[in-house]
Amino acid sequence: MTSHEREQFIIGVDLGGTNIVAGAMTLDGSRTLNVRSIPTNAALGDEGVADRMVTLVEGVILDTMRETGIFRSDFVGVGVGAPGPLDRERGIVLVAPNLGWLNFPLRDRIHDRLSLPTTLDNDANCATFGEWWQGAARGGRNVVGLTIGTGIGGGLILGGALYHGASDMAGEVGHTTIDLNGRHCKCGNYGCLEAYASASAIATRAREVLVREEGESAIPGMVNGRYEEITAQTVYDAAKSGDPVASEIVRDTARYLGAGVANLLNIFNPDTVVVAGGVTAAGDALFVPLRAEVRRRAFSPAVRAVNIVPGSLPGTAGMVGAVASFKQQYMGGV
Amino acid sequence: MTSHEREQFIIGVDLGGTNIVAGAMTLDGSRTLNVRSIPTNAALGDEGVADRMVTLVEGVILDTMRETGIFRSDFVGVGVGAPGPLDRERGIVLVAPNLGWLNFPLRDRIHDRLSLPTTLDNDANCATFGEWWQGAARGGRNVVGLTIGTGIGGGLILGGALYHGASDMAGEVGHTTIDLNGRHCKCGNYGCLEAYASASAIATRAREVLVREEGESAIPGMVNGRYEEITAQTVYDAAKSGDPVASEIVRDTARYLGAGVANLLNIFNPDTVVVAGGVTAAGDALFVPLRAEVRRRAFSPAVRAVNIVPGSLPGTAGMVGAVASFKQQYMGGV
Repeated sequence: MTSHEREQFIIGVDLGGTNIVAGAMTLDGSRTLNVRSIPTNAALGDEGVADRMVTLVEGVILDTMRETGIFRSDFVGVGVGAPGPLDRERGIVLVAPNLGWLNFPLRDRIHDRLSLPTTLDNDANCATFGEWWQGAARGGRNVVGLTIGTGIGGGLILGGALYHGASDMAGEVGHTTIDLNGRHCKCGNYGCLEAYASASAIATRAREVLVREEGESAIPGMVNGRYEEITAQTVYDAAKSGDPVASEIVRDTARYLGAGVANLLNIFNPDTVVVAGGVTAAGDALFVPLRAEVRRRAFSPAVRAVNIVPGSLPGTAGMVGAVASFKQQYMGGV
Repeated sequence: MTSHEREQFIIGVDLGGTNIVAGAMTLDGSRTLNVRSIPTNAALGDEGVADRMVTLVEGVILDTMRETGIFRSDFVGVGVGAPGPLDRERGIVLVAPNLGWLNFPLRDRIHDRLSLPTTLDNDANCATFGEWWQGAARGGRNVVGLTIGTGIGGGLILGGALYHGASDMAGEVGHTTIDLNGRHCKCGNYGCLEAYASASAIATRAREVLVREEGESAIPGMVNGRYEEITAQTVYDAAKSGDPVASEIVRDTARYLGAGVANLLNIFNPDTVVVAGGVTAAGDALFVPLRAEVRRRAFSPAVRAVNIVPGSLPGTAGMVGAVASFKQQYMGGV
């Protein structure tokens, strides 16, 4: 076989505070092979975590070679998604509080060890880009993505390309003020969307409500009275079985998210808003009141133009989007 | 002279609720001739106002021909800025409450009467585009513009092109929620930036404060006790002479605007934010606390990347931007 006949692959890596996910994808995105996830072990420090990323990728490369009969030269490169803020051009993670990193040259570390062209991009940007390339936002031209986990990350796709802004900071939709005198956010601002609608904010609000309404909810029993063990998942589970306190917390979450999403509609007039992350486990209990709140708040021509959809690539959107970002940055387009 | 030696011109028209502004500009924007402004007389209805626009433009064309010796064939076309929402592709103003218009085919009306290629765009988009092409935002690649008048309009320039969104609704930055349980806005939403920081909101807040603090301010004297005559300009004038109540209103305005602008920084990471309209008359009294509030609320890499500047084309930004929009839509780029 000539190299022309063999399929080429790009490796995607998504570095999170908890796990590293990697996998191999064909250039057209039609096949994804050997998706693996290992714990990040952030305590190992920047070099130690980079080692783990390299080992994980080497494993994906070797298994993909074995499986498909391709050569190492058939791997075009590696796209890495990492927490920001970061400097894409220099390939540096500037600050990553969850990892304890400061000015770490992640791209070059990966590149030097693997001898493959490597690009770096923000993890939340990648998650949105992945949903656009292969997931629920496919076909969109102007897309806003929100990934709701411990925090709320976001990404913007404009005219079919990931938008980065003047200094790679664009898309921080979790840190938009929806209540200027509201809750303190860990970013230093007051009233950020993230301080109301992230998974940790949902758990916090549940604890606050239960101090007053303990007897009316199944949640205390679900955690054996250990309130510190309440998570967003506890709240979704309770809401699903009709718990009134949990249901109200989910409705409030939809209201907060609705205000944030309505802002994005009026500013940005997207054709697609894709909401990913654990919060989508709440299903219609979240999406029905979310869409209603957006209708109440945003201009109707913007509401009519948009689809608000749950993500369809749980766990892999970031890895898939890291491949798409490699294509945009290194190959000139997706 | 051959047509190649004669300079070519584009006519810009900015249709506002109060005035129509028109002028002739060379293709490179280096010369602007015969800028005229006439009252809109909205009471004449859509066709009557379109007549006034045509007459105004005919006057600009004739005087420019006389002055420069060019022919009618040297006018490439007409760019029109009008209140939205509108449908650019079909050239229709869908709804313009200030004018009382509904589904009026403004572009074709102007085109049919003048026999010149005509484009239509949103007036607030045009004002931002004008500041980018020839004003305070020149040289920016990613620009957010706010025009603060009776309402708050906005526009986005991304990668050097005006961004319209999925249905020409992008850039409605005045209608982003900064306080989800806050003041009712005439758009139907609660807590919009416009409900706090527009010229009419500033006047309203002044009246509210003066009910309690009448004796501590010079404002009541400035309007001979007729509170209904208080305008934003009254407040800026009083603040400039050190009036404590007026100064606090301007500082509060900066705080509200700061929350709105910080949102735009965290979402869009622009290199330039240009704030235009009457509110800029407050000068440093507004811009110094505005920049401070943005620093407090937005991510520092986004703050470091941005210049927040007052507009430099008062009265003509919309007309200039209508010319730029004609270039983008009809000639493929500015």
